[in-house]
Amino acid sequence: MTSEIISIGDELLIGQVVNTNASWMAEQLNRAGIKVNQVTAISDQREHILSALEEAGMKSDIVLITGGLGPTKDDITKQTLCEFFNTKLKFNEEVFENIKKLFGKRGLIINELNKKQAEIPKNCIPIKNNNGTAPGMWFEKDDIIYVSMPGVPFEMKPMITDFVIPELSKRFNTPAIIHRTILTQGMPESLLASEIESWENSLPANIKLAYLPQPGIIRLRLSASGKNKTELENQISYEIKKLNKIIPDLIFGYDNDTLYEIIGNLLRKNGQTVSTAESCTGGYIAHLITSVPGSSDYFKGSVVAYSNEIKENILSVNHKSLIDHGAVSKEVVIEMARGVQQKFNTDYSIATSGIAGPGGGTDKKPVGTTWIAITTPFKTFAKKFQFGEHRQRNISKTALTALNMLRKEISKND
Amino acid sequence: MTSEIISIGDELLIGQVVNTNASWMAEQLNRAGIKVNQVTAISDQREHILSALEEAGMKSDIVLITGGLGPTKDDITKQTLCEFFNTKLKFNEEVFENIKKLFGKRGLIINELNKKQAEIPKNCIPIKNNNGTAPGMWFEKDDIIYVSMPGVPFEMKPMITDFVIPELSKRFNTPAIIHRTILTQGMPESLLASEIESWENSLPANIKLAYLPQPGIIRLRLSASGKNKTELENQISYEIKKLNKIIPDLIFGYDNDTLYEIIGNLLRKNGQTVSTAESCTGGYIAHLITSVPGSSDYFKGSVVAYSNEIKENILSVNHKSLIDHGAVSKEVVIEMARGVQQKFNTDYSIATSGIAGPGGGTDKKPVGTTWIAITTPFKTFAKKFQFGEHRQRNISKTALTALNMLRKEISKND
Repeated sequence: MTSEIISIGDELLIGQVVNTNASWMAEQLNRAGIKVNQVTAISDQREHILSALEEAGMKSDIVLITGGLGPTKDDITKQTLCEFFNTKLKFNEEVFENIKKLFGKRGLIINELNKKQAEIPKNCIPIKNNNGTAPGMWFEKDDIIYVSMPGVPFEMKPMITDFVIPELSKRFNTPAIIHRTILTQGMPESLLASEIESWENSLPANIKLAYLPQPGIIRLRLSASGKNKTELENQISYEIKKLNKIIPDLIFGYDNDTLYEIIGNLLRKNGQTVSTAESCTGGYIAHLITSVPGSSDYFKGSVVAYSNEIKENILSVNHKSLIDHGAVSKEVVIEMARGVQQKFNTDYSIATSGIAGPGGGTDKKPVGTTWIAITTPFKTFAKKFQFGEHRQRNISKTALTALNMLRKEISKND
Repeated sequence: MTSEIISIGDELLIGQVVNTNASWMAEQLNRAGIKVNQVTAISDQREHILSALEEAGMKSDIVLITGGLGPTKDDITKQTLCEFFNTKLKFNEEVFENIKKLFGKRGLIINELNKKQAEIPKNCIPIKNNNGTAPGMWFEKDDIIYVSMPGVPFEMKPMITDFVIPELSKRFNTPAIIHRTILTQGMPESLLASEIESWENSLPANIKLAYLPQPGIIRLRLSASGKNKTELENQISYEIKKLNKIIPDLIFGYDNDTLYEIIGNLLRKNGQTVSTAESCTGGYIAHLITSVPGSSDYFKGSVVAYSNEIKENILSVNHKSLIDHGAVSKEVVIEMARGVQQKFNTDYSIATSGIAGPGGGTDKKPVGTTWIAITTPFKTFAKKFQFGEHRQRNISKTALTALNMLRKEISKND
């Protein structure tokens, strides 16, 4: 059984929006053992939507559609679906209740446009939208399943994971496919590849390896296919054990783990706390740590010290250290880490100081030069890194490298 | 005259790679006045490539194809193009010279696979690849133009800008198309739509409006098509002026502007500075501000005060205010804003305190309850907001709302 994705929206055809929805959906479908034949992006035009639906239905068993479900005039998917399925819009009480609930929570008043969003084609099964007003819609015609969803990613994604994929897996006898992603930090892709080359070459034929690089992190995805899920799980576990022996220091987690969640869990378990003193990362480490619900249990706060004045006045960095060594130095980053640990009274702390770029580099300290310091209940230490030239990547790499340094220390003391 | 993009590659259908090529190409084509009908991503399969070419040629005058031109076995685009155009591969001396030159530069030796890349279909015009071994190929059949290019972005992009677009502009009498995006903050999509309904209804027939929502921001895209570029620009300027009279407070910029860059430019011009005191946003505002190169000119730093202790000790918030009103209150957020402004000695400051969720809500202060305070050289004020239930969106919305509040104040005092 095969599937097809249709993305509706003029913004995709004028290059204003990159079609990240389609790649995310393709990944989910593949994980569930459903092959994707084609991804088609088309405009908000009746004839085009109709012909795309027609063509997709001729080639695939499942057609997932996103976009064009907003309350405004340019969104015409719902009317066009009625035409395609030869049906009419009907007010749906259940959908309206959901819209009312959403608006109530936000203290907003429902207008006529919103009320119209509760009208859905008669012959579809509505899929609840917990994050917006437009419901998803599940249709069946000539043994083909069509699902229409909003194009807003955080509205569409829960519909796919909580409803569409489980429902499709029930209907179809999908082959067993297992994916496991190993998360590594601390080595660039090409070096990592030679480090694990012999392991990679010895993988069984039914296990495929893919490198998925992100700034500061390389994800290694293993995909195993076969008949028996338990067998595949054992097979993958065995390969991961082998890999753990080769690069134990680089692996920090699996699948959807994040460094900041892992650190949070370790700290919560130990009843310990952390703070950050950030120069070049500008609050990004604090942002990552606080993106985790409940992080106030172990994160007390941060000082973003973007000027030397703040480093001195708030973090008690010595004036002399700043003059003698400059802000991007071992001395200063260590004093920043100690300063925030003392002022914020935490067990651990992270400090960063570097030249994120594109300006500010010198011969001695080119763009990308970065110092990271960690304090633990027992010691303070700092390490120097030479990252690249790209500002956002330097910020990301510094943050993830610092978090991984902290993780190793907490694990040691655990 | 219309065009279509075909992206070939299994990696696009398993969700491993996001199709950024297609959106980039779509943008270039639109800028040149060439409409894009459809973007289709398909696998490296002969039948699929043939049917996609066939279908595209029936709907469009220009078909741009990327991918599947590598030297390895899984790349079959070239052979399939021969089949489609009913021709054969032929060794091309010019292409081979280019490959030799490239290999020379990199100090590599040419192998049989590379030599094969100099074989191209007899009836095509080769397009020089300055950054790789696979040439582009320009075909014509039944008045339809087909161009096949490598999928590697930095090989494909110069072919488009230096050869394909200039060549297409010569051949076709392209209509003028102008896009302008108006950026708004402070009103959800459905309310905004009713607010500007009569303006929208009065738009001339050759101007289309699209709503592009992001968390905390709604972008309004106007697309005008016609014969004369200057005329269209005047037409769009006129419509934007009209819109500015209806929602002057909501519009903060145009096209690729960001709130943090706009604020940065205003502050730099005035020689003024800003600091932030962040509770619920956890450093995200500081992160946005410092994502701009050169932000150290006007941003001194931030205190992320995730615990009451830090609010008291570092920001000098009154213990009594915290006890009497709680951390998420007008009193506390105002004291935070004043505290950071004084300690960091800045002209402006932003403070945030809210319940980002998913936990921590009460009947009186449900998840999403957020206070934002702004200090200026002249005053301090705070506003309460009721955002939604989703943690990341609450953080984004709070940050963008706060930045827009700050922008309005700086503009007033400008």
